[in-house]
Amino acid sequence: MEETEIWDESVTLQSLRMKMREFSSKRQWDTFHTPRNLMLALVGEIGELAEIFQWTGECEPGLPEFDESKKVHLSEELSDVLLYLVRLSDRCGVNLADAVEKKMEKNAAKYPADKCAGKSDKYTAYSGE
Amino acid sequence: MEETEIWDESVTLQSLRMKMREFSSKRQWDTFHTPRNLMLALVGEIGELAEIFQWTGECEPGLPEFDESKKVHLSEELSDVLLYLVRLSDRCGVNLADAVEKKMEKNAAKYPADKCAGKSDKYTAYSGE
Amino acid sequence: MEETEIWDESVTLQSLRMKMREFSSKRQWDTFHTPRNLMLALVGEIGELAEIFQWTGECEPGLPEFDESKKVHLSEELSDVLLYLVRLSDRCGVNLADAVEKKMEKNAAKYPADKCAGKSDKYTAYSGE
Amino acid sequence: MEETEIWDESVTLQSLRMKMREFSSKRQWDTFHTPRNLMLALVGEIGELAEIFQWTGECEPGLPEFDESKKVHLSEELSDVLLYLVRLSDRCGVNLADAVEKKMEKNAAKYPADKCAGKSDKYTAYSGE
Repeated sequence: MEETEIWDESVTLQSLRMKMREFSSKRQWDTFHTPRNLMLALVGEIGELAEIFQWTGECEPGLPEFDESKKVHLSEELSDVLLYLVRLSDRCGVNLADAVEKKMEKNAAKYPADKCAGKSDKYTAYSGE
Repeated sequence: MEETEIWDESVTLQSLRMKMREFSSKRQWDTFHTPRNLMLALVGEIGELAEIFQWTGECEPGLPEFDESKKVHLSEELSDVLLYLVRLSDRCGVNLADAVEKKMEKNAAKYPADKCAGKSDKYTAYSGE
Repeated sequence: MEETEIWDESVTLQSLRMKMREFSSKRQWDTFHTPRNLMLALVGEIGELAEIFQWTGECEPGLPEFDESKKVHLSEELSDVLLYLVRLSDRCGVNLADAVEKKMEKNAAKYPADKCAGKSDKYTAYSGE
Repeated sequence: MEETEIWDESVTLQSLRMKMREFSSKRQWDTFHTPRNLMLALVGEIGELAEIFQWTGECEPGLPEFDESKKVHLSEELSDVLLYLVRLSDRCGVNLADAVEKKMEKNAAKYPADKCAGKSDKYTAYSGE
C-alpha cells in the first residue's frame, strides 16, 4: 500500500541547510531572515499547505483522488514548509539533525511499543501530548 | 556569526521517513495517520513552536537571549514539526527529497541572484509569493 | 438540522474589544501586546484548536460524537482565538466591525448567489482565493 | 495612544453568524462547511494574515509604518479569520457568544489583577497556558 520508492539519500538536513545559506547569502537576504520573520513565513506556508486540504473532505493515504497537478502543487508546499523550517532552525542556532534524532528517542521512550500497540489512548484523548 | 558546526550528514529525509514508518507500524498507528489527521497535527505543532516566540519581542539570530532549557524546548518543537512533515509527505505519496530539490531550483530561477542581490522587493511587498 | 438557539445579542465586537482593553490595562500587559506578539499568540491558539480535531477523522456538523467535556474544551479554544483576534485588530488600529461588514459585501459580490448556487467551483479548485 | 473610535455596536457575533448562514445557504455551500473543512480553511486564512507580518520586523501598535493599502489588506484578512471562526463555531454547535463570556471570566480568575499587575510571569515563561 505504501510507496516503496526510495527517497534520494543524498538529501540531508545538512545539505538543505547549506543550500539555503548560499541561496540567502547570494541575494543578501540574511538581514530579513530573523527568527520571528522566518517563524511567520513558516506559518504562511502552513496556511498554503492547509488550503490544499480545506475542501477535500477526508483523503485516503496516497491521495488517489488528487490529479497530477494537484500532487505537484502539494509537493511544492510541503517543500516550502521544509525549507523555512530548516532555515529557521539554522538561524536559531539549533542543530536540527541532532535535535530530531533525540526527539525520536524521546518519543520512543514516551510511547513504548509493547504498551501502545493496538491501543489508541493518545488518539482518543483530545488534549494532546 | 552563523553557527558553523556541521549537522550530522547521516540524517537524511529518507532515514527520517523510514524511522517514522517503523515507529508508527510498531504501535499500529498507521490507521490514525491519514493525510488530514497529520495535517492538523502539524498545525498543532506549529502552534507550539509559535508559542515559544509569542512574548519575546524581536529576537536576534542565534537567540543569545534564550537560556539552555528554552533552547532545548525550541529544538524539540522544531523536531516535532519536521517529523510530522516527513510523515505527512510519506502518507501523501510525495517524494519529499525530490520535491525539495526541485523547489529550490524553481526558487533560484524565480529570484535570480544578480537581479535580487541587495534588493528586497519580495520583502517589502506584503502579498507574498 | 442547525442549532437555532439565539446567541446573546449583547456580545458585540465592540464589547469584546473594550473588555480586552480593560483586562490588559488592569494587569499592565499592554506592553506585551504588540502586533507581532499577538499574531504569534493567535497562531498558538489556532494550534490548540487544531489539536482537538487532529485524530478525529471526519466530523459531522454539530459534533454528535463529542462528549460534553470535549465540547467545553472546544468552546474555550474557539473563544481564545476570538479574543486574540479582537485584541490584535484593536492593537493594529483596525476597526474590525467595519472591516467584517465590508468583507462580507465584497464576498457577496465575488460569489454571486445565482451563479454559484449548486456549483462548487471554489471548492473543487485547490489553489484558493 | 489607543484608537478611541467606537466600533459599530450593531455588529454582534449573532449577526455575523446569521449572515454567514444566509450566505452559505443561498450558495448551497453548507455541504462543504464541515467542521474539519472549516478548521483547515481557518488555518489557510491565518497563513494569509501571518504573511502580512512576515518580513516587517517588529511593528508598533497602530502600525504607523503600514500604508493605507496594506492596512486595508490587513483588515480583510482579520475579517476572513473572524468569518471562518464564527462559521466553524456555528457548524460545531458551539454558542460562541456564551463561550467567550465564560472564557473571559475564567481568564480573570486565572490571572488576578492584583497579583499579576506589573508582573509578567506569564510572559517570561515560554511553555504557555
